[in-house]
Amino acid sequence: MFDPVEKLKEFIRHPSISADSAAREGMRGAQEFVSNLLGSLGFTVEVVRTDVHPIVLAHRGGEASWPHVVIYGHYDVQPADPLNLWRTPAFEPTIIGNRIYGRGAADNKGPLLTNIAAVAKALEENPRLPLRITFLIEGEEEMGSPSFPVFLEKYAARLREADFVFLSDTALPNENQVVLTCGLRGLTLFDVHLTGAKGDLHSGLHGGVLRNPIQALAEILASLHTPDGRVNVPGFYDEVLDVHPWEREELRKLGTDEKAYADFLGIDAFYTTPGFNPFESARFQPTLEFNGIGGGYQGEGTKTVIPSKAFAKISCRLVPNQEPDVIKQKVMDAIRARVPKGIKLEFVDQHKGDPYVVVPPGRSNTPKDQSPVLAQAFRATEQAVGEVWGRPPLYLREGGSVPIIASIKQVTGLDSIMLGLFLPEDNLHAPNESFNLDVMRKGIETTRRILHSLAAGTR
Amino acid sequence: MFDPVEKLKEFIRHPSISADSAAREGMRGAQEFVSNLLGSLGFTVEVVRTDVHPIVLAHRGGEASWPHVVIYGHYDVQPADPLNLWRTPAFEPTIIGNRIYGRGAADNKGPLLTNIAAVAKALEENPRLPLRITFLIEGEEEMGSPSFPVFLEKYAARLREADFVFLSDTALPNENQVVLTCGLRGLTLFDVHLTGAKGDLHSGLHGGVLRNPIQALAEILASLHTPDGRVNVPGFYDEVLDVHPWEREELRKLGTDEKAYADFLGIDAFYTTPGFNPFESARFQPTLEFNGIGGGYQGEGTKTVIPSKAFAKISCRLVPNQEPDVIKQKVMDAIRARVPKGIKLEFVDQHKGDPYVVVPPGRSNTPKDQSPVLAQAFRATEQAVGEVWGRPPLYLREGGSVPIIASIKQVTGLDSIMLGLFLPEDNLHAPNESFNLDVMRKGIETTRRILHSLAAGTR
Repeated sequence: MFDPVEKLKEFIRHPSISADSAAREGMRGAQEFVSNLLGSLGFTVEVVRTDVHPIVLAHRGGEASWPHVVIYGHYDVQPADPLNLWRTPAFEPTIIGNRIYGRGAADNKGPLLTNIAAVAKALEENPRLPLRITFLIEGEEEMGSPSFPVFLEKYAARLREADFVFLSDTALPNENQVVLTCGLRGLTLFDVHLTGAKGDLHSGLHGGVLRNPIQALAEILASLHTPDGRVNVPGFYDEVLDVHPWEREELRKLGTDEKAYADFLGIDAFYTTPGFNPFESARFQPTLEFNGIGGGYQGEGTKTVIPSKAFAKISCRLVPNQEPDVIKQKVMDAIRARVPKGIKLEFVDQHKGDPYVVVPPGRSNTPKDQSPVLAQAFRATEQAVGEVWGRPPLYLREGGSVPIIASIKQVTGLDSIMLGLFLPEDNLHAPNESFNLDVMRKGIETTRRILHSLAAGTR
Repeated sequence: MFDPVEKLKEFIRHPSISADSAAREGMRGAQEFVSNLLGSLGFTVEVVRTDVHPIVLAHRGGEASWPHVVIYGHYDVQPADPLNLWRTPAFEPTIIGNRIYGRGAADNKGPLLTNIAAVAKALEENPRLPLRITFLIEGEEEMGSPSFPVFLEKYAARLREADFVFLSDTALPNENQVVLTCGLRGLTLFDVHLTGAKGDLHSGLHGGVLRNPIQALAEILASLHTPDGRVNVPGFYDEVLDVHPWEREELRKLGTDEKAYADFLGIDAFYTTPGFNPFESARFQPTLEFNGIGGGYQGEGTKTVIPSKAFAKISCRLVPNQEPDVIKQKVMDAIRARVPKGIKLEFVDQHKGDPYVVVPPGRSNTPKDQSPVLAQAFRATEQAVGEVWGRPPLYLREGGSVPIIASIKQVTGLDSIMLGLFLPEDNLHAPNESFNLDVMRKGIETTRRILHSLAAGTR
């Protein structure tokens, strides 16, 4: 059995920045690192070429009656800039106290290696472990997984043979409380472009004559929410699932603190969907958000123009069972209906992702046809977390989006168990990213127990 | 008497771009050109140093009973770029047909030289012309006349000795119709900055929790107009002067064409102050306009942030008797009252200028105490225009702003007679600027007649 911390250091040293075309060598190094590591554990490794960065697919087969888990992770990392804000070199792993510093330490190299080490340990303890395992490790997560849909379609049949997906790419609220993420928001994004006159105009000679596209844009954007904070688009909430009492109860157990949250954000008032506190609103309700706006003169001083053009970037976070294309159409229709005379409208489509929810066994809304292996895996996870961390996990939906989880569900029917392993203070996507080695140790022990427990349930 | 066209060529050859610090030699050349020209006509020339570019003050004195006209002009020009769009070199004057091409040909070197040539001719015809003349020729007009207020305060006493200001820095609607501009809009400008959270936030983790400053900005901007196109700020129209029937009548004589105007702008609907057609709205009504807007992510693709900040650049065009500071205060108060909870507001003040109006003699709203010399000058101008152009001038207010005209009025009490000499097709501030030499010839003759007529009225 390898030393997980030493292996993690080796992994971090490969600067695998997927978005940086100059980081080709680091990408190859990280890919080969995981391929070799899994090969050394007896896995059959396949490096699946894609248009951008390859996907590592590593398989341990077995009898058809054995449970089959797909363990997801990614070997790519965010860019490390601004480099001058790092206290230790971004790609020279450094241990200080119980933390290891380096880009990717927490997202996702540490958590991924935690699961690989747990597999290694379980197989060392029982080389004949009756469990089929497929590692699916991509290299484009930090750039939006552009090749994933194509891969998924191509490998759908093979993936459908598995029972569920297991991954650690979500958060722990604090060092003592494990969260199993059981829901993610989807999203749909597009840009709105408005055009008034055919060119920028002198605001003296022509001011008072025509509609300014910035004014039209402001009027349209302002119309998209009601004063009390709901999205003002016909049918926007039609497909939103009710929140079940047990979900609010889980959140209450988390011990949320509105004052501390407002201080963290630097605001003096929340603005939520009516009837939902901020913690609930971000998890259970959809949004329509403006990510950017631009038009006319934005420099120092003044330029007295009536601009010809203005635009806004819009995104909606979606909850089950909202469909991205349906919601986008409703929002676009609302905008189209509100464009005033004298203004031309154009949309630029951006990407999208479905929302996702999985209900653990024994809840009021657990599907009657839930797969027995998935239910068993949830119970095994609950039990292992309780033993290792001293308290049971919480099941929480999260406000963020991991579109591949919903894609996997749609294409293969597989649900995901998301065991969070990074902490708010781990500085993901920021300078001085780190990973807590106590969490790593506990994580390895948790996953090890889950694997044994799953295998023990084999008939 | 010099050849006006040859002199204009010489004038244009000096690249006097006031905003370009590399054009120092061109600025000095143009300044010395006018100084020497006026010196050669017997004027006492004073070059008044300022913080940026000097002002040429050239005086022809006489008896206190003689009328005293201040002739305004500017020797600086706009930058000439993009140079590749010029069909002839920008600073190599070129005559094609009845036009002279070159940067500054129409704004303002041609019209200014027209008036200088008229003075030269009148003085040649009558060296003892009983008329006091002061040329006031600045070099910062194209950069907003930053030194003018200081100059004005310092020379106020001397300027107050004059009777009125005469200038040609406004437009003719077409080659056959002279317009005397009798009103200009003022303006007030400022920026609005809104801040939500203390930094940009992940729109998944925090979306649905707080108010987006782009949304707040859109709501505020949208609130600043009523649906029918009036500015929705309490008291905004309080001081707006009524339009007199004769003013609408003058506009009707202009023969305006809404279809042609809409085509020129490239719009399919106008949006004016209710009760005013587009030509009236731009001249007689104030505006509140958005010159620029920005916030959040504006690049290609997407970035799912809730931005911390958003801003807009606002300008109001004002009509008599609106005061810039009063209007700015009213708009700022309205904005302040509409900022929602959770959003912080900041204003950045920009510049301002008063509106201006002068009423020709014999109108329903002509001031009872109008100066007899001003009234005489208006009549002389009307008569000269009628004789030279074959039809009387129209008196029109314009939508643009020339803040120095209102400043001169405020500080010295002097009104201005604005005889337009450039045409819409002269391409001011654009490549291939040109000046119509037939207009120049007629302009010289017009101003020559005005000067003789004024002098003839001397008791």
